[in-house]
Parts: sequence; C-alpha cells; structure tokens
Amino acid sequence: MDTEIRSIEQIHQYINREIESIPFSGCPSNLYDPIAYIMHQNGKRLRPVLALIACNMLGGDLNKIVRPAIGIEIFHNFTLVHDDIMDQSPIRRNHETVYKKWGTNIAILAGDTMFALAYEFLVQTDEDILGEIIRLFNKTAIEVCEGQQLDIEFENRIDVSIDDYIEMIRKKTAVLLGTSLMTGAIVARASKEQAERLYKIGIMMGLAFQLMDDILDVYAQQDKFGKSIGNDILTNKRTYLFLQAYHKANPSQRRELDECFGNHSIPADEKISRVKHIYDDLKVDDDGYAMADRYYNEALRLLNELPVDNYRKIQLKSLIERLTVREV
Amino acid sequence: MDTEIRSIEQIHQYINREIESIPFSGCPSNLYDPIAYIMHQNGKRLRPVLALIACNMLGGDLNKIVRPAIGIEIFHNFTLVHDDIMDQSPIRRNHETVYKKWGTNIAILAGDTMFALAYEFLVQTDEDILGEIIRLFNKTAIEVCEGQQLDIEFENRIDVSIDDYIEMIRKKTAVLLGTSLMTGAIVARASKEQAERLYKIGIMMGLAFQLMDDILDVYAQQDKFGKSIGNDILTNKRTYLFLQAYHKANPSQRRELDECFGNHSIPADEKISRVKHIYDDLKVDDDGYAMADRYYNEALRLLNELPVDNYRKIQLKSLIERLTVREV
Repeated sequence: MDTEIRSIEQIHQYINREIESIPFSGCPSNLYDPIAYIMHQNGKRLRPVLALIACNMLGGDLNKIVRPAIGIEIFHNFTLVHDDIMDQSPIRRNHETVYKKWGTNIAILAGDTMFALAYEFLVQTDEDILGEIIRLFNKTAIEVCEGQQLDIEFENRIDVSIDDYIEMIRKKTAVLLGTSLMTGAIVARASKEQAERLYKIGIMMGLAFQLMDDILDVYAQQDKFGKSIGNDILTNKRTYLFLQAYHKANPSQRRELDECFGNHSIPADEKISRVKHIYDDLKVDDDGYAMADRYYNEALRLLNELPVDNYRKIQLKSLIERLTVREV
Repeated sequence: MDTEIRSIEQIHQYINREIESIPFSGCPSNLYDPIAYIMHQNGKRLRPVLALIACNMLGGDLNKIVRPAIGIEIFHNFTLVHDDIMDQSPIRRNHETVYKKWGTNIAILAGDTMFALAYEFLVQTDEDILGEIIRLFNKTAIEVCEGQQLDIEFENRIDVSIDDYIEMIRKKTAVLLGTSLMTGAIVARASKEQAERLYKIGIMMGLAFQLMDDILDVYAQQDKFGKSIGNDILTNKRTYLFLQAYHKANPSQRRELDECFGNHSIPADEKISRVKHIYDDLKVDDDGYAMADRYYNEALRLLNELPVDNYRKIQLKSLIERLTVREV
C-alpha cells in the first residue's frame, strides 16, 4: 500500500490481514496465548483504521503508519483486558474475557506485556517523528487510565454531573480516537495545526461513539452486540442514560433508581427491566441520540474546514457517520 | 550536575531529591496517591543510580540521564505494584503494599499509569537517541513480564532446573539492571560495543543480586530486610535455595520438602522453620553465595576490561561489591 486513496473496506481488510499475520506467540506460552486470543478476535479495528484513513487522506505513505496503528490497537486491547478484570466482565465480543478464561494474574500480566508490545509497534516508523508520536501516546495512555479510574469511582458517587461524565468518556474513550487520527496525520507529515484538528475530530467522534455505546448497552439486540445487554445497569455504571434519567426523574422514579442501583439482591433480569422501564418513560435514549448528534456534527464541521480536497475526505466522513448512527 | 565524577552517595542523594521533588499528583487523586506513596518510599534507587553511574563513568552529562533514569525507577516500582497483587504480598519496604492498602483494582490501574509515566520520563532526553533508548526499554519491559510469568509458573512445576531458574531471574531482575547501565551509556554517547558491555555487566550484577535476595529472604534479620522473612517459602517460590536443596536432598529430606511445599494447612511459622532446617542441613546458602560470587567476578572482569580510566570505574566497582556482599 502507498499513498493512493483506499476505501474503508480496503483499509479494514489490510489492517486485519496485517494483525492476523502477527503470531503474538512467545515463551512462556501462558503469557502469549491470551494476547493472541484477544488480538485475533474479529473486532472493528476502529483505531488503526482511523490512523490509516487520516494518513491516507493527508497523502501519507500507509506503509509507515501500519505498525504504529497496530500498536494503538494492541494498547486498546490491553485496556480491555485490564478493564474486564476490574469490572469482572465475563463476556466481550461474544467471547469469554481473558480474565474469565485465564484468571486475574495472567490477565494482569498479559495486559502489561501488551502495553510494552504497543510501544514496540509504535516506534516502527520514521526515526525523526518518534518523539512526537510517543509523547502524544504517553499523554493519551495516562488519560485513558485516569478515565477508567473516574469510571470506577463514579459507580459509588451520587453527585456525578453530565459534565463530569463527558470528561470521563473524553479520557476513557475519545482521546485514543483523537490520537489514532493525529498519529496518522503526523506520519503523513501534516502541519501541527492539521494534526491537532484531526485530534479534535477524534475527540468529537469518541464522545458521540461512547454515548451511542451507552445507549446500545440497553437498547441493542443481543445478537448484534458483542457484550451482555444491560451490563452497565448490572454493574451500576453512571452512564449518560442513568445520569440523564436521574436528572429528569420525579421523586418516585428517583426512589426506584436509588433502590435498583443501591440494592445488590435484586435479580439481574428484574434490575435491568425496572431500570429500562424508567429510561423508556423518560425517553433518555432520545436525549442521548441528540447529544451524540451534536458531537457528530461538530466532528463533521471540523472535517469540512480541513484544507484538503473533498474527495480525500470521503472515507473519514463516512466512518464518522457509521459510528454515530449505529443500528440499534 | 554535569560530567564531573560523583560518589555513589552524591548520586543517590541527587536521584532521591529529584524523585522527591516530583509530586506524582493528579486527578483522580485515588489513582495518583498510590503512585506518590510508592515512589516516595525510601528505596535503594538502585536502577537510576546505575544509570547515572554509567553515564558519569563514561563522561556523559548527568542532566540528560536523570529523567530517563527516573523513568526506569517508575517502571521498576510499577512491576512491584503488579507483582504484589499476583503474589498477594502484604508488606514491601516495611510498608503495606499498594494492593493491600488500596485494593486490587486501584493497584492494577495505578500500575498501568506508572507504566505510561515511565515512558513519559524516558523520552525526556536528546531527540536523536530516543529510538535507541525506547527500543531497548521495550524489549526489557517485555522480558520482565515474561520473567514474572515464569516465576509464577514455576510455583506449580516440580521439574524446574537451575538453568530454568537462572533464565527466569535474568528476565525478571537482571535485564532491567543491564538496561539501566546501557541507557546511561547511550546518553553518554558510548560506542555500541561499550554500551553492550555495560548491559552485560548489569546482567551479571542482576543475577548475583537476585541470588543474594533469595538467600536474604530466609537468612536476613527482619529489621534490616524490608520484606517478611520466609515469604518465598510461604508462597512456594522456586528460589535457588529450594531448587538446590531439592537437588541435593536425600529421599527423606525430599519427602519433607514435597510435604511442606504441597501442603497448605501447615502453619506459616512451622513451614518456614521446617524448610529452613533442610536448607541449613544441606548448606544451600553456601552454594548460593558461591554462585553469586561467580556472577560478581564476571561483572568485575567485564568492567576491568572496559577501556576507560580506572579512577572513573571506582563507583560502579564499589556498587557491584556492595550489592553482592550484602550483610545477612
């Protein structure tokens, strides 16, 4: 691959082939088997696809972004492995999680190894841009950890505002999408201003994407969704839906929410159904869609104003649309 | 500080002051408090001291190694935080471990943040050597994870040879000492050959150091040792002492070892005392000292042959001696 414009599908297939061709094997095998297991699962590969699309859009050489892009994907999967321990999640992408399959200790250590592997891939590009790429990535990795910690802390806090929530998902989800796009821009030798614009587009996409994910957790069809439906409710996550519902609730609805989120003896199905009932009554999914739309439009506006020929923007534009208008 | 030769004490104090001046604070505080807690504990600061001594010996500018050296120390402390979860260790450096004080989830996430912080410090040096420094560090970080996994696996294996053990401690302990010295050499613009010699010296030091640590776990005086005495025995670690004892044991001693290491109902004190009794009878501590001595002598030989004025080698030589002839 080189600098010619590629479709999202071509880029997705290219990344998939590249990742599949990496064995992620090593000794001791108990450490590497979980890494190969999660890295070879069919995922959206959203982050590396974004990195390649940005690089491609800006006329960069795809050969020079593919390894750093895979590094970002490895990092993302590392965060999933550790998050699943902390959240005690049994299922991800319709598969048992690493923590469930191999236990906590191996999940911790395989995750740590993936973190180091991420850096190993990240530095496989031109030497003169290494510093810029790694500094961006370091800052992002730290923010992702901060976001995960905020997410956990919010579970036991009653005073979480929508602004707190947006700041949490910015760190936990959005900065890595911004970093994917910006890394692609750096490799394509874009100006600082262009690269930072790409970062902001990623932030807006990430916020919209996470809002959609919160909605899908409750409203998706199980067979189209890789995770368990209602998992956020079961694990008392302060999602947008919850916060907005709590904000709009009348006193009896609020008592009902308090009871559901504070009581660990309610059976899972009943808890999900009671909470969903309130979400339905208050139409908080509509509010969520509206908010996601605002971020989506801001991402498009930033992209439109990028001084690049329109025909080069088609892939990123279409990806923004796909991500934020997901089928429920 | 610049290129003038400094004593170990000066270097140790310099590093300590630098680390103490970093607040390691941030938001959310629950994530950063454990990082400041462990980073501000009085430790030997062995790894950054090694990095500074190597740089100083080879005529490098200490200002350019201090931040990467702190990065290595942060990484080392990150591995302790995660290892203590896996080993369920309650005490380290006479303090409660992060896992014990804050719980598993925060220990996982604070550790992850420290890993990213390590890289953030590591890249604070001259731009043209970043690639070399980071590639060395990536390889080492991966090997340290592999070493920890081997260490865990050995607990449930009966067929661990002394060679397996040496390979495990090479990865778990020695490569990071080698990397500390080699990073100092890279920053001092040493030749590739010199830098690699420094790496090997670190490996030899690390092997000797870990053998001494295994001996101290059983034979140290509690008040001089930061960890609980006999912890390796309690947690069924395949240390050098155990492997050598198992190798030299007569049938009845071997049955006794099998019983102690396979039986979880023996009270802690009794288990430690019964195992130590066999170690004493078989004098495996003497074997351990002899083996540590061989690595120690090899480290000194490699240092002697380094084409650098002898007066510049005094600090490293003296540090090798201190580490490998620790008071029991």
